[in-house]
Amino acid sequence: MDFKNWYDLKARKIDYHLNLYLPESHNRQKKIYESMRYSLNAGGKRVRPILMIAVFEMFKPNEEASIMPFACALEMIHTYSLIHDDLPAMDDDDLRRGKLTNHKVYGEAMAILAGDALLNKAVETVLQNQTSMNLSPKIILSCLEMLMRSSGIEGMIGGQVVDMFVEERSKDYLEYMHRLKTGALIRAACQIGAVAGGASENEISKITDYADYLGLAFQVKDDILDVTAVESELGKPTGSDEKNDKLTYITLLGLDESEKLLGQYTHQAIDSIKHLGEQSYRLVEIAEYLLERKK
Amino acid sequence: MDFKNWYDLKARKIDYHLNLYLPESHNRQKKIYESMRYSLNAGGKRVRPILMIAVFEMFKPNEEASIMPFACALEMIHTYSLIHDDLPAMDDDDLRRGKLTNHKVYGEAMAILAGDALLNKAVETVLQNQTSMNLSPKIILSCLEMLMRSSGIEGMIGGQVVDMFVEERSKDYLEYMHRLKTGALIRAACQIGAVAGGASENEISKITDYADYLGLAFQVKDDILDVTAVESELGKPTGSDEKNDKLTYITLLGLDESEKLLGQYTHQAIDSIKHLGEQSYRLVEIAEYLLERKK
Repeated sequence: MDFKNWYDLKARKIDYHLNLYLPESHNRQKKIYESMRYSLNAGGKRVRPILMIAVFEMFKPNEEASIMPFACALEMIHTYSLIHDDLPAMDDDDLRRGKLTNHKVYGEAMAILAGDALLNKAVETVLQNQTSMNLSPKIILSCLEMLMRSSGIEGMIGGQVVDMFVEERSKDYLEYMHRLKTGALIRAACQIGAVAGGASENEISKITDYADYLGLAFQVKDDILDVTAVESELGKPTGSDEKNDKLTYITLLGLDESEKLLGQYTHQAIDSIKHLGEQSYRLVEIAEYLLERKK
Repeated sequence: MDFKNWYDLKARKIDYHLNLYLPESHNRQKKIYESMRYSLNAGGKRVRPILMIAVFEMFKPNEEASIMPFACALEMIHTYSLIHDDLPAMDDDDLRRGKLTNHKVYGEAMAILAGDALLNKAVETVLQNQTSMNLSPKIILSCLEMLMRSSGIEGMIGGQVVDMFVEERSKDYLEYMHRLKTGALIRAACQIGAVAGGASENEISKITDYADYLGLAFQVKDDILDVTAVESELGKPTGSDEKNDKLTYITLLGLDESEKLLGQYTHQAIDSIKHLGEQSYRLVEIAEYLLERKK
């Protein structure tokens, strides 16, 4: 199957399972279900869960059902972080992926609760679907621990804090921030896929290197898109980083240098897994896809 | 040991472990650690974790180390819910337990993130302290599932939503709301203590009844205190429910009827566990303590 079809198929399967784990509700809390589902179905690229599945299937082909609850949990965590990021007290954004942000549709109080609820639901999703995963309780606990560490104060949330209160405008500081803010979830995606798949220590280590370079490449690309993308394709206003005086690769290094760095990190990501053999070709394709993306 | 000394000792042990699981940090995210620790150490009564330990020790006396990560996780979840409740977009409160609320000290953005981080940290605390718990991976997973269900959209967060968008001013609606908003965590406290302690089905069922009546009594008492408490003892302004046109036992039934109901629920809670024998005496004392409390 060519990459595009493979990727779209995986994305549709993730969409299907997200809606299965979080169906519509008709009880007295139905409004928050609606709010959570709105953001979950707002057109995300599903990069993180697809990465997790791709790594997992290197070791256990055709067993994606075993990893689906973790893949969807990760997407829920990513989604909640966007809802809270967009809040007036944070980045105060009205648009995300071309649609109104959660708080613009449901109000600020509901957006706060919907974010909380998605983080909570992520953990519930793993715990309530243990029987559909062909994984031991010990492996489930260990993967859940990786997931939660990556999304907490020494991971994604920590990165948010470092981003909000910039103390130093240096490349070192910028990459510290991104290793937490974007990198941690991408690393968790790959590590959970590898551990649940039964990878060896050596394989886990190489896949972690891949994830770390990919995470940096992903962020450089995001910063580049903020200045070069077509607004209608990106689904949100461009130039917002400069306007908000954000510390980014562009504001720090300029566009040319950032393009170079993007190529370099992508190359290093692919290089990290070349000795894992043919089974890793989807990871190479994902890295190339993220390099070329328009949004 | 008399009840007051026993309770204070447990509360101090919980304080100790909360600070052990979430120590000060000196890294670039130190500010969020500070913000989380501020609210964790802001004088909570520790009712929920003490309940969990009391139930657990009915079955496994002197083994509280085995349940401490769950007890502290529950307190972290309770604390995060207060931080988010107090936000300007929610109840917009400046004072809690006589101290400035989190967002008044650290700003709104940090308060949102600190809340998120405490929910995340609650799960991490359980997962990162498995070795100190003398519990099987299966029991840990099962207790974690109870914890997360009780704090999610079919538990505490759901109750918040129902409270925010009141659709009906009836006792049925009010109790639906409280079974979720306050009741779910109190039920989880007792059920986790019982399951982790190895209680029988019959014992779990009686303890669940106790928890459900206690949860209702707890909420009636809260509503009563909002109109009868001395403001300096309560640590926040009284009369705020009426001012905010909240649906409460007082606004629905009046003070006299509410006092009666409080006595009745407390009696039913105690009655539920009378056949569990002498080992349940701490639960009786806790119910009496909550009946008499001044804040």
